[in-house]
Amino acid sequence: MIKANNPSLQSWVEVAKDSDFPIQNLPFGIFKTEYLQPGAGVAIGDYVLDLTYLHENGYFDGLGLPAGVFNQTFLNAFIALGKKKTSEVRNRISELLEQSNEELRDNVAARELALIPKEEVEMLMPVRVPNYTDFYSSEDHARNVGTMFRGADNALMPNWKHLPVAYHGRASSIVVSGTEFHRPKGQTKADDAEMPSFGPCRLLDFELEMAFITCKENALGDPVSTKAAPDHIFGFVLLNDWSARDIQKWEYVPLGPFLAKNFASHVSPWIVTMDALEPFRVAGPKQDPEVLPYLKTEGNLHYDVKLQVALKPEGAEETVVSNSNYKYMYWNVSQQVAHHTGNGCNLQVGDMYGSGTISGPKPEEFGSMLEITWRGEKPVTLKDGTQRKFINDGDTVIMRGHAEKDGVRVGFGEVSALVLPAK
Amino acid sequence: MIKANNPSLQSWVEVAKDSDFPIQNLPFGIFKTEYLQPGAGVAIGDYVLDLTYLHENGYFDGLGLPAGVFNQTFLNAFIALGKKKTSEVRNRISELLEQSNEELRDNVAARELALIPKEEVEMLMPVRVPNYTDFYSSEDHARNVGTMFRGADNALMPNWKHLPVAYHGRASSIVVSGTEFHRPKGQTKADDAEMPSFGPCRLLDFELEMAFITCKENALGDPVSTKAAPDHIFGFVLLNDWSARDIQKWEYVPLGPFLAKNFASHVSPWIVTMDALEPFRVAGPKQDPEVLPYLKTEGNLHYDVKLQVALKPEGAEETVVSNSNYKYMYWNVSQQVAHHTGNGCNLQVGDMYGSGTISGPKPEEFGSMLEITWRGEKPVTLKDGTQRKFINDGDTVIMRGHAEKDGVRVGFGEVSALVLPAK
Repeated sequence: MIKANNPSLQSWVEVAKDSDFPIQNLPFGIFKTEYLQPGAGVAIGDYVLDLTYLHENGYFDGLGLPAGVFNQTFLNAFIALGKKKTSEVRNRISELLEQSNEELRDNVAARELALIPKEEVEMLMPVRVPNYTDFYSSEDHARNVGTMFRGADNALMPNWKHLPVAYHGRASSIVVSGTEFHRPKGQTKADDAEMPSFGPCRLLDFELEMAFITCKENALGDPVSTKAAPDHIFGFVLLNDWSARDIQKWEYVPLGPFLAKNFASHVSPWIVTMDALEPFRVAGPKQDPEVLPYLKTEGNLHYDVKLQVALKPEGAEETVVSNSNYKYMYWNVSQQVAHHTGNGCNLQVGDMYGSGTISGPKPEEFGSMLEITWRGEKPVTLKDGTQRKFINDGDTVIMRGHAEKDGVRVGFGEVSALVLPAK
Repeated sequence: MIKANNPSLQSWVEVAKDSDFPIQNLPFGIFKTEYLQPGAGVAIGDYVLDLTYLHENGYFDGLGLPAGVFNQTFLNAFIALGKKKTSEVRNRISELLEQSNEELRDNVAARELALIPKEEVEMLMPVRVPNYTDFYSSEDHARNVGTMFRGADNALMPNWKHLPVAYHGRASSIVVSGTEFHRPKGQTKADDAEMPSFGPCRLLDFELEMAFITCKENALGDPVSTKAAPDHIFGFVLLNDWSARDIQKWEYVPLGPFLAKNFASHVSPWIVTMDALEPFRVAGPKQDPEVLPYLKTEGNLHYDVKLQVALKPEGAEETVVSNSNYKYMYWNVSQQVAHHTGNGCNLQVGDMYGSGTISGPKPEEFGSMLEITWRGEKPVTLKDGTQRKFINDGDTVIMRGHAEKDGVRVGFGEVSALVLPAK
């Protein structure tokens, strides 16, 4: 077991029982305050630990970290140090926060400067994203969408169980939770219209996803095996891959989704490390037909992460519209990496790789309004009595995720975004 | 007319009559030598003009350029200064190189340091590419491919004449001309096979494209109009969008091309500015049906650039297999920008936007082997007597492009790449 994951660890920082950020988590992010420039931090309970301060004041001495590695607008330089080094840093932070450790606990001046109440920070994009790929790896999602558009008999395309289908998404429009955005406009064509028209999207949807972030490059031409894949993955975030269904329908044949997706994709600000998720690994579904050798994996490579989507109309209480789980993926992340690089494609540090919409087998586990309301045929009634087929202006969509075992809860916080009317 | 484009200008640097780089061109790139770190340069005849040297020695004084703006591994910082400023720099370089100007001409020591023979330089990627989009804007190409796969009656998809179809490509695998690469491996499935298999691509193809590079961001949520689009475009390069046809066929439904494209895409090293191409603007084809208002443009927004693809087997003479022209595009670059940003998608500095394969109406103008050999049905015979349906190991594919008018030839040099066997 990774030392910092020990369920018996307690911190001298008070952490509420239902907090996503106990000492066993220690996710990394980029924050700023009224007084501090953007820099790297770690979440602990209701506080953010300022890594720039700790580094400048010798708390990481002996780890051989470059000067200024935390004093940056993105985590790319830090995670590029590699899994061995970043795990050492996480372990050292765990040590510093452990209840019996006096170094920071009993240095009142330092503690006051290093621990910043979360109300005082603004979270920023954790990484600069050089490349963004979105997979399509939930069988229930692929089946639901396939059934709606092609019928139950042809729900899955012939390639689906042989390779983790994916496409390239837009990196520039990935933004952090809370970033304002407007309902997109676009070209659409109603089935009964002769000509297309341009205007606000009418079928705005969320997609519940998780994304992993890479920390190690491979040279162009050199595939990464399933076995080597974990060394390339730093951690995970929640991802709301907003989708304009009506724009998508008209534009996507034959080259795939484009403007239906690239107007905004929100991510949660804290990167939960692969290390922290280690205790929550579970077996994936049996893969039948057998996969080709380059996609074979051993052991438990899925993660039991409970996921939730809530919809909050303006001025009203939120309603939970989905409860899904990351363990429902058909393809695991090692297979995704091995497939993506099988042709020699090069990963870069900070790249984001979305899971695709994560749906479970039951209707209450579906990860998009398209599936939840079955193309609008079964509207959802919210707690305020209003109904939704898709997402309205003024709605806030909130996604949350956490893993739980042996009394330890490791969570992601949330990714939240309010839909403003089209400009 | 832009002053630096005047056909009567002559340089004191000797420029051969058939050179792509007369004083009317002045394209920008990144080069290094045995002694010099990577930095910005401009091509003139058979020389590269070292902009770092010129800047450090006062030749750009009065233009208000930031210190170190040329002393960089990419042109991003320079082009981010904006079209007004970068045009001023091009004009100043034109002045310095003009035959009657003594400043550099008669300063032997400076001239020797500033002008480097092209044999002594290695050209590098001109920009760091944050995002790469590939359009599909040649009607002849779309019709050819559509006819092959769906028959002549359904060749164009219903959306094709209403919007410039595009998809997101991979930024990390865009490399400069000459970069070594190996035939990719991948998953394919023969029509008569029960199961897919993994191995070297058997149908490796080139795609003849041009790409524009953006120099100005728009905020997420703010569309760029067709009228404002040129202010966002710095210039153009040649692009070989390598395609693994057999991998593509098996993977691309329903989300589009992925591993069939992202193993390598080669670009020419010199960015020919939009300014330099100004004299070669021509009218595009009549667009029928009429486009929606957000896609309307006025004036000549196409470019008459002659394009050529040559195939050179190992140790043999090259054979020209295609002669096409950039003017054959159905959609112009202003329409591409307006469509791409119509939903609020944000452009970034250094982004690359490919045209899609550029085919003309005649078979000798087709821009890919898929079309030239009509899926392999009509193999091409090369000068060495060998035949090709697609590209063999050991073949070098060379693309060239130039515009010509009033005795002035403005060219791109070439993008060239040798196919090494699968690893």
